[in-house]
Amino acid sequence: MSKFLLCDEKSSFEFVIESEAFEGVKEIGKTVAEDIRLVTGKEPVQVECLDKVQSEVAVIAATVGKSSILDAFSKQGIVDTSLINGKREVFMMKTIELSDALSNIKRILVIAGSDKRGTIYGMFRLSELCGVSPLVYFGDAMPEKKDVLEIDIAGLNEKKQTTENIVTNEEEKDGSGDELLISKEPSVYYRGFFINDEWPAFGNWATDTFGGVNAKCYKKIFELLLRLKGNYMWPAMWNSNFSEEGPGIENALLADMYGVVMGTSHHEPLCRAGNEWQQQYKKYGDDNSWSFISNEEAITKFWVDGVLRNREFENVYTIGMRGEADSKLLPEDATMKDNIEVVKKAILAQDKILKEKVSDKLADVPRMLAIYKEVEDYYYGDETCEGLKDWDELKDAIFLLSDDNHGNLRNLPTEAERSHAGGYGMYYHFDYHGAPISYEWTNCNRLTKTWEQMTQAYEAGVTKMWIVNVGDLKEMEYPLSFFMELAYDYEAWGLNGLNRTKEFAYKWIDKQFGTRLTSAQKDDMFKVLEGYTRFNAMRTPETMNDMIYHPVHYREGERLLGEARGILETTEKLNQELTGEALLTYQSMIYYAAAASLNLVIAWIITGMNHEYAKKGCVYANSFIAEIEERIKRDQELVDSFHNMADGKWNHCLASAHTGFMTWDDREWAYPVTCKVSPISVAKAMVSFRGQDRYHLGAHWQDMAPIVSTDLLYDQNDETLLDIDLKGNVACAYKITLESEALECDSFEGKVKNYPGRETITFRRSSSLKAGVDVEVKGRVEISFENGQKTYVELLFKVCGNSKCDNENVLDSYIKGSAGVVGKDRPYCCFRASEFDFGHLVDDNGFEVIEFLGREGNAIKALPPMRTYASAQDAPYVSYNVRADEAGEYDIIFYLLTRNPSVKGGRMNFFMAVNEEEPVTVHSVSDHYYTEWQDTDWAQGVLTAGRQVSAFVTLNAGINSIKVFAGEPGVIIEKIVIKKKDYLLPVSYLGPNL
Amino acid sequence: MSKFLLCDEKSSFEFVIESEAFEGVKEIGKTVAEDIRLVTGKEPVQVECLDKVQSEVAVIAATVGKSSILDAFSKQGIVDTSLINGKREVFMMKTIELSDALSNIKRILVIAGSDKRGTIYGMFRLSELCGVSPLVYFGDAMPEKKDVLEIDIAGLNEKKQTTENIVTNEEEKDGSGDELLISKEPSVYYRGFFINDEWPAFGNWATDTFGGVNAKCYKKIFELLLRLKGNYMWPAMWNSNFSEEGPGIENALLADMYGVVMGTSHHEPLCRAGNEWQQQYKKYGDDNSWSFISNEEAITKFWVDGVLRNREFENVYTIGMRGEADSKLLPEDATMKDNIEVVKKAILAQDKILKEKVSDKLADVPRMLAIYKEVEDYYYGDETCEGLKDWDELKDAIFLLSDDNHGNLRNLPTEAERSHAGGYGMYYHFDYHGAPISYEWTNCNRLTKTWEQMTQAYEAGVTKMWIVNVGDLKEMEYPLSFFMELAYDYEAWGLNGLNRTKEFAYKWIDKQFGTRLTSAQKDDMFKVLEGYTRFNAMRTPETMNDMIYHPVHYREGERLLGEARGILETTEKLNQELTGEALLTYQSMIYYAAAASLNLVIAWIITGMNHEYAKKGCVYANSFIAEIEERIKRDQELVDSFHNMADGKWNHCLASAHTGFMTWDDREWAYPVTCKVSPISVAKAMVSFRGQDRYHLGAHWQDMAPIVSTDLLYDQNDETLLDIDLKGNVACAYKITLESEALECDSFEGKVKNYPGRETITFRRSSSLKAGVDVEVKGRVEISFENGQKTYVELLFKVCGNSKCDNENVLDSYIKGSAGVVGKDRPYCCFRASEFDFGHLVDDNGFEVIEFLGREGNAIKALPPMRTYASAQDAPYVSYNVRADEAGEYDIIFYLLTRNPSVKGGRMNFFMAVNEEEPVTVHSVSDHYYTEWQDTDWAQGVLTAGRQVSAFVTLNAGINSIKVFAGEPGVIIEKIVIKKKDYLLPVSYLGPNL
Repeated sequence: MSKFLLCDEKSSFEFVIESEAFEGVKEIGKTVAEDIRLVTGKEPVQVECLDKVQSEVAVIAATVGKSSILDAFSKQGIVDTSLINGKREVFMMKTIELSDALSNIKRILVIAGSDKRGTIYGMFRLSELCGVSPLVYFGDAMPEKKDVLEIDIAGLNEKKQTTENIVTNEEEKDGSGDELLISKEPSVYYRGFFINDEWPAFGNWATDTFGGVNAKCYKKIFELLLRLKGNYMWPAMWNSNFSEEGPGIENALLADMYGVVMGTSHHEPLCRAGNEWQQQYKKYGDDNSWSFISNEEAITKFWVDGVLRNREFENVYTIGMRGEADSKLLPEDATMKDNIEVVKKAILAQDKILKEKVSDKLADVPRMLAIYKEVEDYYYGDETCEGLKDWDELKDAIFLLSDDNHGNLRNLPTEAERSHAGGYGMYYHFDYHGAPISYEWTNCNRLTKTWEQMTQAYEAGVTKMWIVNVGDLKEMEYPLSFFMELAYDYEAWGLNGLNRTKEFAYKWIDKQFGTRLTSAQKDDMFKVLEGYTRFNAMRTPETMNDMIYHPVHYREGERLLGEARGILETTEKLNQELTGEALLTYQSMIYYAAAASLNLVIAWIITGMNHEYAKKGCVYANSFIAEIEERIKRDQELVDSFHNMADGKWNHCLASAHTGFMTWDDREWAYPVTCKVSPISVAKAMVSFRGQDRYHLGAHWQDMAPIVSTDLLYDQNDETLLDIDLKGNVACAYKITLESEALECDSFEGKVKNYPGRETITFRRSSSLKAGVDVEVKGRVEISFENGQKTYVELLFKVCGNSKCDNENVLDSYIKGSAGVVGKDRPYCCFRASEFDFGHLVDDNGFEVIEFLGREGNAIKALPPMRTYASAQDAPYVSYNVRADEAGEYDIIFYLLTRNPSVKGGRMNFFMAVNEEEPVTVHSVSDHYYTEWQDTDWAQGVLTAGRQVSAFVTLNAGINSIKVFAGEPGVIIEKIVIKKKDYLLPVSYLGPNL
Repeated sequence: MSKFLLCDEKSSFEFVIESEAFEGVKEIGKTVAEDIRLVTGKEPVQVECLDKVQSEVAVIAATVGKSSILDAFSKQGIVDTSLINGKREVFMMKTIELSDALSNIKRILVIAGSDKRGTIYGMFRLSELCGVSPLVYFGDAMPEKKDVLEIDIAGLNEKKQTTENIVTNEEEKDGSGDELLISKEPSVYYRGFFINDEWPAFGNWATDTFGGVNAKCYKKIFELLLRLKGNYMWPAMWNSNFSEEGPGIENALLADMYGVVMGTSHHEPLCRAGNEWQQQYKKYGDDNSWSFISNEEAITKFWVDGVLRNREFENVYTIGMRGEADSKLLPEDATMKDNIEVVKKAILAQDKILKEKVSDKLADVPRMLAIYKEVEDYYYGDETCEGLKDWDELKDAIFLLSDDNHGNLRNLPTEAERSHAGGYGMYYHFDYHGAPISYEWTNCNRLTKTWEQMTQAYEAGVTKMWIVNVGDLKEMEYPLSFFMELAYDYEAWGLNGLNRTKEFAYKWIDKQFGTRLTSAQKDDMFKVLEGYTRFNAMRTPETMNDMIYHPVHYREGERLLGEARGILETTEKLNQELTGEALLTYQSMIYYAAAASLNLVIAWIITGMNHEYAKKGCVYANSFIAEIEERIKRDQELVDSFHNMADGKWNHCLASAHTGFMTWDDREWAYPVTCKVSPISVAKAMVSFRGQDRYHLGAHWQDMAPIVSTDLLYDQNDETLLDIDLKGNVACAYKITLESEALECDSFEGKVKNYPGRETITFRRSSSLKAGVDVEVKGRVEISFENGQKTYVELLFKVCGNSKCDNENVLDSYIKGSAGVVGKDRPYCCFRASEFDFGHLVDDNGFEVIEFLGREGNAIKALPPMRTYASAQDAPYVSYNVRADEAGEYDIIFYLLTRNPSVKGGRMNFFMAVNEEEPVTVHSVSDHYYTEWQDTDWAQGVLTAGRQVSAFVTLNAGINSIKVFAGEPGVIIEKIVIKKKDYLLPVSYLGPNL
């Protein structure tokens, strides 16, 4: 038997869940039955024993130790529960064919869990096998309708063995004729997410939809968590009180029933929500101060009551203490010792409560101390005071490390620290309310960054707890799916997942859309997902403004505008093509996030152009106004439409302020301001080359320096664009005279009209000139106008090839492999770090090219991620051939991705050597680098997602070999620029164009 | 007889101009006859002898030595020509009653000139006495119609003796019973103007009107010059060739006939126009280079021909040499010696030509060397080479000094230099095409500055030649009238003219409008003239942009906007009120200049506000857009209307580019760019105090520093304005709660509506609090909004009075006389320099308050202007009482008017002393100050019309006496600011508000 028929046109299977089963299993039984109904239209009946089954097919969902049936099957040798017994959160599925004529049952599918969550994971696995996505509710991923439901357990096993496809579970055969599938134990012990900073979006949505952030609401959230194979959660707490507002204790009861381990966030000790103290302090005294120095007794009692209230449920107890509202505990002038002592005092009091009220074996009580912000300082301590890190009291506590709130890991356990008995966790962010600038509106996370960073965490031994802040939750379905999958099945997706996020994305798309998409549509969908998340990760909507992508330099604005328009076009195309439930799914999780994000990117880029041309007084500036205003209107329309879609199911979910922020918070948020030029009343033309600041207005005294087209120099197409703009409201005819036969242009005369007030002429070197050999073409061009205005331009073409280099092989290697040419008329060169000429591995380790990681494309990182090289000696490297026209001093600039050192005080060193010179150390960050807003290096890095570090190098004339050696963890290089020492790179967001 | 009847209803006088009279006198006779016709409608007949007179009244216009009649009258003792004989440019008028029954002539008016120009001035004086303005053509100042024409020569004499009114001529009685009037000799020998940089305005106008810059055109210009009692002119030469395009020599012939002494501009030697060389060099060789090193022979011949062509006429010969197109002669790397030697060589060649072709007595040949720009360096020479200044060859040449092209004198003759036999001249500018930024559109000159600077020149001995660059001429009528009058009658208008420019203005108005204006209209007219010229002098239209008057600080933009609107309102009111010829006169010389200038001032100020509020995202920004666009349209309308007025008489005359310049020339000229805010879609209010940068958006973390109203501190009205702006498109209701009874406000609740998106609330201290004693009022104010937003504001009132000061007298003196209070909550104080507590004179000389001189009001200058004090000892001074709340270090900042040192390397020193301390020297400019664009101090000074110099002072607590002593010429102080040393004054154009 390879396929197991669950339902056919006539009848459905029935669920057998015994009366002694966990309540949560019974409840999830109903949810899964509902899932099945969505597929077949027929909801499986749930019965308590096999006798009551009337269908030919029974599905038994049971937990080892909580099932007479399993006991019996085990005794009978039908189901070998010893295969899962004692395992953590594991399930097995076994199909059984019956031939007993006495029973109407022909086939049984046993879903046996090693524990409650194992059973539930197994049950949701059945949903998935029937085509139901974990995002059926939150992503409106409605399953495809089927009359007949068959599952193929054996097929899954075979897939695993024979393809590279995603395998999320270990699945095995047990040797019987029946099909058997056994899941793996999860990779990370506690896995979950944190709903945070949940107003106005999530908060209003929950209130409208469920009447509050209550148990009705958490039922949906817990189901999502469990479907994603999570087991741990921090509840919303900005303005909510999980254990008091379910109503009452209902939320906590529900979590316990479903087997969800509850925590409280990093700064809410002992089951108490942040708000509770001010609401309840009067029960404990008159003093409302949250100070363990002045108000110890009251706060201790408050904590005791928290533990008494929640101790019956499965919890990880947050310990330690921060100030109220996620602030520092003590005033700024307190010493390190003062701080550590008060934290220690609080922890001792907390541990005492836990020992008295929960278990006198403290090691059995899951405790977590978050090493967040200033707590990191207390964790390490200083010369005045030992830190918390080595305090024996905490040996069994989980140390929850955290990122910098912007998805970049901070300190990770050193090799020595990894033996910490309590283990390590990671508090990661997909959303944040705080410095340098909040990002709370829509998804700004790329799978590849999550992969790269969380893999590094796992490799550093951070395996006990992964919790991700998902903000308002909605629109985070895509990165959250990946995060949870990675936490559950690191073996499949961790280091083995190198360059497989694209594969994940396609699988994810399949899971949501089933067979509803054509292959081309899947490609489009991937383009949209990758595209909009790339733009948002490169610069969040909140931090976008008119000054980001430069309207002139390197034609950056133009280039990114083209990319954004391309992705938006695909986004809209899918929205046109899809229908029905597929459209709904698309809109719910992808369309609005992408369209609204890209709409703003475009609005701001063209606003930058509008401002640039307005500053120059060109009427062309006005041609952008209508679109800017249209896009502002569109932004509001998109938000409104999203709120109205599916009968308003997601009302409020995109309500956050979302662009033009000038401070860390949203108080200054603003739409683009449009500038309108009032033309002067005469004919006046402005002549400029696209990508250059300089322009000419016809005054001969402007001519003193020749205008050289850098585009001709550097554009690989060997063409340059000449723009003629109008400053007046009088159309103006032009004539172009080329004084060199080596030049060509696509128009020799024309008229610049009032609207749009611009003409563009393309210049190329003559096609009669051959490429591949050195060509230097200079030519004078005259642009004259009917108003008498004249501009003379000196154009200079330089194309690749080096006639001075007489070694054919070197020339060949240059032409084929060299990354760049610098010197003489080329003040800089620029190449992708991934385009190295040679990669040297050490012990099979070295730099890997990682796709979709850089701001613009791929980037290189040395793997495994925690392997550290103290010097260039024995370090793997990559090398680049760079040709310098002239020997001399140059700057080499490394365009790194924004990451943080993995050790306190670390500088993410790596090494570089030119030709045969001794390698030098390059520091990625300064020696006072600090992951808080006060450090502008960090803040800028977070805002731009990249940073540059540079070093002086001396190059020889001719080919130079530049080696870049692996150093410390965290170094990711996307681009390398080499420039003449005295050349100033024009301001831009991404640097020179690759 | 006191009144002389020239014409009555029936008949007019007849002109007797003998056949032997100067042709120019005959020609001017026709012009004056035409003038009379404009008044009476009857044109006087011109006859050659008394016998031919048929009327009862004859007017004889004759020149001593060119008139048989005068000879006869003289012999007969009827006219004593000895009273004028040998005088320069003098005329006498004598009325004679006849009783001879044989003749029909009853009365004769003799106008006898000492020379041709004397006669002509006398004839035009007759026109004036008949009510014809010198600006009858150029200012469309049509005389009032009269049936009867009487003149009262005796009355003029009496007026002179009994009133302070303007007296432009010396007029005397000769003791006979008849009336006699004798004019004075002109104060300045050569007086005239230069039409320059005359395209597109004057050039197109002349071409349209006269077919070119030809003799028809110069007839009008020469008449203007002579009516204004000028005698000297530099012709247009940007693209014209005076002596070749009349057509041919006609222009020069006409000048000669009219008695106009022709010059060529400072860089056009020996009667040759600048353009002629390139047009004619082929006559002299193949080499077109304008180099006296390589092309001496050809250039010499070229000069010879120039002299031969023009020597028959009255000329002042420009000598020396500059490069072509008014540039430097030698390349930048030439030494001082190289330069001086080539100039000397050229001058020797020029003198040789003049000796050979004009007169071997070189002292009799009027020669002028312009000390312009780099020629000044050659004039002084250096240690390597003696300058031209003491070169014997030049002892009889006029040294024509020049201003800095922006109306600020440069070096003036020292006492020793004043003995130079050739005398000194001044080349002054009312208009300039060059650095730092050209001003060529309309009049930017104030009479008071011209008075102040040209008086200083005269007092320094610059009396031989005054020539003013009037650019396109049109719209310069008002300052040109004053310049010419001052040059002609320095005795009346020079030092004696202190604070009499207002009187001049009223006289000038009378001359143009006669009795057509009411007294109130004259006041209005003065307001308009003074107002628009003040704005244009403070900042030219060309240099206006949105960044000039600060939209926030000191409420500067708002204040100047109010002033400009007030003046514009009066400008428009007069335009509504006046009719017929008075309206035409007004429009021709005042209305368009004022309306167009002020229209732009307003446009730019509100653009600054538009940009400021747009930057902050306030929808209020949008409320400015319509007016900005309206004013841009209005600018074009005003120019067009001016061009169309009087049947297009002045077409082209306002055609120059005129605003938003970004470089020295007009290539970047632009109108204001408007910014439009797209409101966010929620209710969001912004709370701010008028005049302050800080604003509040309701986030409580913005509250950390209290908002203190500086308006309350410093505004004399003791009130402050609270602005509530909207950032969103949702109207928002507000409530205000005052937590102090010491405060009052004019509104406690209201609603900010979408348009204009702003509400303003006025706060005052409670009227129950008494003024006059120290009052410090602090109060908390809560501003809350229906959207939940809240702002708490700490308001602080401080009013004058010092309870700590127990000496009643000191307190009294402080309250009455003290200029300012500084310290504690008052970081600065500010007062007018003219508001000194005490002025100390030395030998009756000292600081004088000069009205209408400062950018904002009056200013002080020590007179006489060339009196120099090397130290504070014996120098006159003014003193100011300043109260400091706290002893300590302060900065004292002097707001000076932009002027230049009168000696090479001078620094315009003056002296200052605090209390009993030793006086210290204050330098107005740096020790490397240089009046060229390369010196940003100079350039900034020229652009802003002011500069600041500061000094550290230590003040005692309590009253301090600050003395300011006169020092070197050129120091004019308008305002004094004293501020705490560490306090940074907010950026503004004019500094703190007085």
